Order: sequence, then structure tokens, then C-alpha cells
Amino acid sequence: MTDRRPTVRIVDDRESHRPDTLVVEEPLEIRVDASPLAVTMRTPGDDVDLAVGFLCTEGVVRNRDDVRTARHCSGNVVGEANAGNVLDVTLAPDTPVPSVDPTRNFYTTSSCGLCGKASIDAVRTRTAYPVADDDLRVSVETLAALPDRLREAQRIFDRTGGLHAAGLFAPGGAAWCVREDVGRHNAVDKVIGWALRNDRLPLRGSVLLVSGRASFELVQKASMAGIPMLAAVSAPSTLAVDLAAEVGMTLVGFLRGNRMNVYTGAERVVADHESTPSDVEVGVGRQAVGGRPPASA
Amino acid sequence: MTDRRPTVRIVDDRESHRPDTLVVEEPLEIRVDASPLAVTMRTPGDDVDLAVGFLCTEGVVRNRDDVRTARHCSGNVVGEANAGNVLDVTLAPDTPVPSVDPTRNFYTTSSCGLCGKASIDAVRTRTAYPVADDDLRVSVETLAALPDRLREAQRIFDRTGGLHAAGLFAPGGAAWCVREDVGRHNAVDKVIGWALRNDRLPLRGSVLLVSGRASFELVQKASMAGIPMLAAVSAPSTLAVDLAAEVGMTLVGFLRGNRMNVYTGAERVVADHESTPSDVEVGVGRQAVGGRPPASA
Repeated sequence: MTDRRPTVRIVDDRESHRPDTLVVEEPLEIRVDASPLAVTMRTPGDDVDLAVGFLCTEGVVRNRDDVRTARHCSGNVVGEANAGNVLDVTLAPDTPVPSVDPTRNFYTTSSCGLCGKASIDAVRTRTAYPVADDDLRVSVETLAALPDRLREAQRIFDRTGGLHAAGLFAPGGAAWCVREDVGRHNAVDKVIGWALRNDRLPLRGSVLLVSGRASFELVQKASMAGIPMLAAVSAPSTLAVDLAAEVGMTLVGFLRGNRMNVYTGAERVVADHESTPSDVEVGVGRQAVGGRPPASA
Repeated sequence: MTDRRPTVRIVDDRESHRPDTLVVEEPLEIRVDASPLAVTMRTPGDDVDLAVGFLCTEGVVRNRDDVRTARHCSGNVVGEANAGNVLDVTLAPDTPVPSVDPTRNFYTTSSCGLCGKASIDAVRTRTAYPVADDDLRVSVETLAALPDRLREAQRIFDRTGGLHAAGLFAPGGAAWCVREDVGRHNAVDKVIGWALRNDRLPLRGSVLLVSGRASFELVQKASMAGIPMLAAVSAPSTLAVDLAAEVGMTLVGFLRGNRMNVYTGAERVVADHESTPSDVEVGVGRQAVGGRPPASA
């Protein structure tokens, strides 16, 4: 996931020449039943999770049963440079194959009828997993500890400074899955794909933490996976807050040390003694940071 | 460009309720000759620059002459909520209308033939504006001052913490155009669209500074506009460095105070007395931060 490049380092008037460690970025083409669907620039690794998670957050698949196989397409490659950059997902027989550009399905484009409200409605009618009735409760203390846990699990960031991270946490703060990528949307898709392949969807009773800002797209992805709480280290946008409010998701922003802003669903952020029982008691608390998902979906 | 939402602010055990100022995010549909081409989530404002810049960095248009008109499509809207979210660009008669999904044109998808090298080749053969022969020279001192100038010109960031910025600078450090957006790619497209509409393409002898990381996509956009130097406050990726090397662009990362890493084209980063003459002498130094572009492209 990292590689080195020669670099001229300048500090004031002094120059030094030495390699710098950078995060790898390579294209991944996601195919469904052998037809190209999308290309994303990503950090190689956990590609199956990324592809399956992308299909989930775009509404193409809902759970593990919708995916028949997911594998790198290296059969007809001459040379090795690109063997890992095309991934083909085959769907279960009764799962409809999506149209070529799934992102456009979220929008109404038949007339000049595009607005934030329409975008929100598209997500709300599209998700299979409502979150409004999720009775998750997370303590302020637990939330405050999550950014440090995310950073601890980030293996690459400290070497390159070039990665976004997304982590899925139990109500008690245990990390289930942490993924890094040059693209923040990819990091989230990798986490959700990991959960799908482990048959954990919908992700009721979980918290998704992202290292950067909370955009509409990230709230949308959390909604498609049934995640009731999204926390971000930085600022949310208006449309992220509006979508979270509409679907009944808790949205926390500026989560830094003992400070945080709760924009929606504040009833799920509670004092210590009111939080959901420990991870083990809710039955999903297995520590899985960096754990390997099953070999095939 | 900002709006307020009710917020529960938590510091330790103390809660306070008050509105927080957030950056606005809304969808923009870009149409070409009345056909929908792409939807991007953006911060409203400078929409014409964004649309035209997007078409430029996707290779649809090369200069001002390729664009006939660019205007919001509000003719058949009932109500006002979405009047500003659809923008139609009409092309000059001899400019080919692009296929539905222009981003896919960058990739070869006929076989398992996708890799970083293929992505680089696609940009190199697509750009109309080579940069390798650009004799721009920028001093270390000038580069070191750019991040502060970018921040000074960011009108929204200080209120919301939620925006990326991109700025186009003269060799002497004068800011020509600074734009903010929830999406870093949009901020760059807005700057390039501003330049196109002011008939400044190719952007020879200029420096583009971005507030975050330098990805492949941002180097690609700079290349499509003929910008010879891209500087970023944070880390580049491997593919960003490889593309910059291939097209002959200077790529600077981790530009912070008096420190920076120069990954490619280090000959353009020089000691003070070797830099390109002052902005006025090269004839393009008009200060234009926040300036209004012409009413129509």
C-alpha cells in the first residue's frame, strides 16, 4: 500500500535528496457480470470489500446473498502490471444487474428537478435498512475515545500522511473494522463491504467514524448499510445534516478530544450509565481490526 | 455559501444548544447541449466556472471559443428550490458533444487492461497543453508564502471549517483566483473554469495550490489546463507523482511554512534571484481574488 519516490526536501535554503514513502493510488474497475460499471482511484488492498461495499452503497446489492462471486479479473492479462485492477462481481440470479452509471440513479433528471430535497428522497426510498428506530446509545466518553482508536489502527497514515480512514465500532467502542484509502468514500465502502461479506448487514447498533469531513455521500453510504450513527473528525455539510435528520441517523461532527457537535439524533449520545451494554452482550463485539474477511463473498 | 443548523455542543459533561454555521452542499447537474452529462455535489456559487472548468479538465472543451453559452436552466422550474442546480452548456458548432460519461473515456476497458500507466497515457494523449517546456521559475520564499495567501482569501473556511480551497498564483506569488468548495476537485474546476472564461488557457507560468492532498485527479486537471506547477499542503499519491513526472509538471507536497518536498520538476523551484520576473512584467499579474468573471463565457 506504499511505495517510494525520489524527493528533493527543502527546508529554508537547504536541499536534501532522499526517497519519500507515498501511499499507492491505482485505478480499480468494478465490473458486474463482466460489464464495466465504474472506475475508482483507490489504494490497492481489500479490493473485494471495496467492490462489494460500493455495490451495496449504490443500491445494487443488499446483503451477502445477492453476491455470487467477486474476484480479480486476471485471466486475459499479458504481463502483471494491471492484473489486480479489474474486479468482476457476479450477482445472484434474482438480483437485477444495474444500469451503466448507478450514481445517476439517485437523481431525477427528467426536467430541471434537481435539489437537495430530491437527493435526500432518492436515498430514503432506496435504502433497504431504516435506522430511525435503532435504539443504539453511545456514551460521550466512548465517542471521545474513538478518534485515537482509529489512528492507532491506521497502519499506513503515519508513514505517508496521505490516507483517509473509516472505522466501524461497537457501542462500547471496540473496533470491528478499520480501513484506509486515498479516497474517503473508498475507505467507507471497504468497511461496509467487509461487513456485507461477513453477513452483518444491516449494521444496527454500530458507529461509523471517518477521519475527515462528513459529506452527503458519506451519510448516504451509512444509510444504505443501516448504520445509525456517523461521526466525523471534521465538519459536516448542510446536506449531510439534512439527510441524517431525514433518515433518523445520529450525526456527530468535530469529534476532537472531549468536544463534539451533535447535529442530529442527539438522543443516542448519552451520559456513561445510559449507554448500550458492553460489546459482548450485544453479540457483535468481536475485535476484527485488520482481520481477514472470508476468502470469497 | 453557508447556512445554519441547530446543534448540541458537548464539552465533557456540559451540553449547550445553539446553531452551527455549516457549508452548503447541493447537487449540480451539468448538461451539454441539453443532455445531462454529470452530477456533482458542490457548494453553490461560481457554477458557470465549475461547469466550464469541469468540461475543460474532462477534455470536452479546450478554450473559450469552444463554449457558446453557459447558463442555469430555470425555464421550466416550478418553485425556486432547484432553479440553480441545473446548468446547461452549449458548445460551439465544431466542438464534438461528449459521450454520456466522460470520466470513462480516460480508461481502456475493452479487456483487463487497466493500470496506472494506462491512466497516465490517457491523460498525456488527451491534454491539449503540454507543460514540459514551460520555463516557469518560482522561488522557495514565494512558494512558502502561498498557503497563508490561500487561507487569507478563503472567506468561508474560518466560519465552517468545511471547505477545500484551490488558488491560482502568478510566479511572484500574486493570487489570480481562489475558490472554495466542499469537493476539492470542484474547487480546482472552478479556478480552471474562471481562467478559461477569461481566455487565459493554457495557464503557462502559473502555480496551482490546493489545500489538501495531491491525487492523480488533481494532477490530471492541472495537466488539462496547461498548469506547469501544482503545490499541495498535504501528501501526494504515487500515481500523482508518476503522472506529474510523465507530463513534465512540477509537483510540490507538504508545503508548510519554510518546508516542502519537491517530487518532480525540481528545476522550477529556485533560490530567490533565479525566479521568473515579477508578475507585472510577465503581463498576467492582475490581482483577481474574488473578482467577477465576464457575465457569459
